Amino acid sequence: MKNISKKKINAAILIIGNEILSGRTQDLNVSFLSDWLNKKCGISVEEVRIIPDIEIKIIKSIQHLKKKFNYVFTTGGIGPTHDDITANSLSKAFKTKYEYHKEAYHILEKYYGKKNFNEGRKKMSKMPKGASLIYNPSSAAPGFKIKNVFCLPGVPSILRSMIDNLQKYLKKGLTINNKSININTIESNISKDLTKIQKKYSKKVDIGSYPFFRLGRIGVSIVLRSSNKKKLNSCLVDIKKMVSKKKIKVFKK
Amino acid sequence: MKNISKKKINAAILIIGNEILSGRTQDLNVSFLSDWLNKKCGISVEEVRIIPDIEIKIIKSIQHLKKKFNYVFTTGGIGPTHDDITANSLSKAFKTKYEYHKEAYHILEKYYGKKNFNEGRKKMSKMPKGASLIYNPSSAAPGFKIKNVFCLPGVPSILRSMIDNLQKYLKKGLTINNKSININTIESNISKDLTKIQKKYSKKVDIGSYPFFRLGRIGVSIVLRSSNKKKLNSCLVDIKKMVSKKKIKVFKK
Repeated sequence: MKNISKKKINAAILIIGNEILSGRTQDLNVSFLSDWLNKKCGISVEEVRIIPDIEIKIIKSIQHLKKKFNYVFTTGGIGPTHDDITANSLSKAFKTKYEYHKEAYHILEKYYGKKNFNEGRKKMSKMPKGASLIYNPSSAAPGFKIKNVFCLPGVPSILRSMIDNLQKYLKKGLTINNKSININTIESNISKDLTKIQKKYSKKVDIGSYPFFRLGRIGVSIVLRSSNKKKLNSCLVDIKKMVSKKKIKVFKK
Repeated sequence: MKNISKKKINAAILIIGNEILSGRTQDLNVSFLSDWLNKKCGISVEEVRIIPDIEIKIIKSIQHLKKKFNYVFTTGGIGPTHDDITANSLSKAFKTKYEYHKEAYHILEKYYGKKNFNEGRKKMSKMPKGASLIYNPSSAAPGFKIKNVFCLPGVPSILRSMIDNLQKYLKKGLTINNKSININTIESNISKDLTKIQKKYSKKVDIGSYPFFRLGRIGVSIVLRSSNKKKLNSCLVDIKKMVSKKKIKVFKK
């Protein structure tokens, strides 16, 4: 785990699931988690990996990412079936026991009732020794945190219902502010000017340029991101000047 | 580049783009590309990485993935603006010159007209020496192939328009067939039986279990994948027997 400075906190997301890799299922968790981490916690996601339900791949990815980033968030593979191997793999990655978590066991036993608390359901309370729970208000089975790694479910609606129970574990980073402007042009018409402006603000403001075609409109979204509000605003002024000089129309959203 | 057997061909996808990592933009290319590669080419995507527009990260990711997988597909970063650094980074990853590709230059010059062929537009014809073009019927600027790496644009509609021009470069792998059944139960009710069936078919059939909640229905999709049709069908029969024995309702899609 990287030493956490008070300023910049970064994270990686590890999506575990054959269904995403095969193209069968459209992932919705990356954009949700990244946006939430960014806006609510000032944590910037700097890498995402999507890997299959294969133990050795999970172990290796976790061992690599947990060293390289302040936090790692996994999604998928914590349900009751044979292909849910995240918790067991995490135990191996951290070289710790894979065992019943007492509180998780009680939560699930209460939820399903003693009679219906079968093997698959019990399995959902097994996790690495020393894990802390991330409570699940929608379907009971908790996620968990072990060191700087947070294991969340793959079903987007369940993940979203749990997200507020995650926040208490996270240090807040520097908030990254952003400004954007949508203009009626094509990228190659403004690329030279944008390069100049990016050079002027060097590493203080990150300028992104994204072409779009929607609702019959052709345009470019210019997105500015920075932790420095003054520089951000002054960069936006420069962009607006350039746009006005080139007589480019600005879209009102 | 891995030695390509006639049977199994694998691939990785590298999504290059701050806009995906920040959560601003929902990626749509992974599911499209994976599905297309799977169904049209018998190529299975075994890893996806999403990384920022940072040269050293692109170089390192490419150098790692091109060795580990038969094919690598990148998306994003081949436009005309300052944040489009994929082609230049690829040249560095392959330790080859970054130069104008004659044919690409002519295509773009013709498309924009000599007078309007500015620096940004010219930049889109610069690529690693020795690259082959992937033609773009929708907005002219071509993608390219260098060795076993294929560079495609990030805008989903443009990527999709180019995909057929990619196929000629790819060796066809073993087709993976799949069958699925949607049933009215919850995972923990069938986990034990599914484990038994997965053991019976060991590595011949991959059984995935995916809970869903949609249109007011709670259910589980069981998805079987295999290159062996006989085993696939026989596995489906076993699943259906289990479902019928447990008196679980089967949804008609």
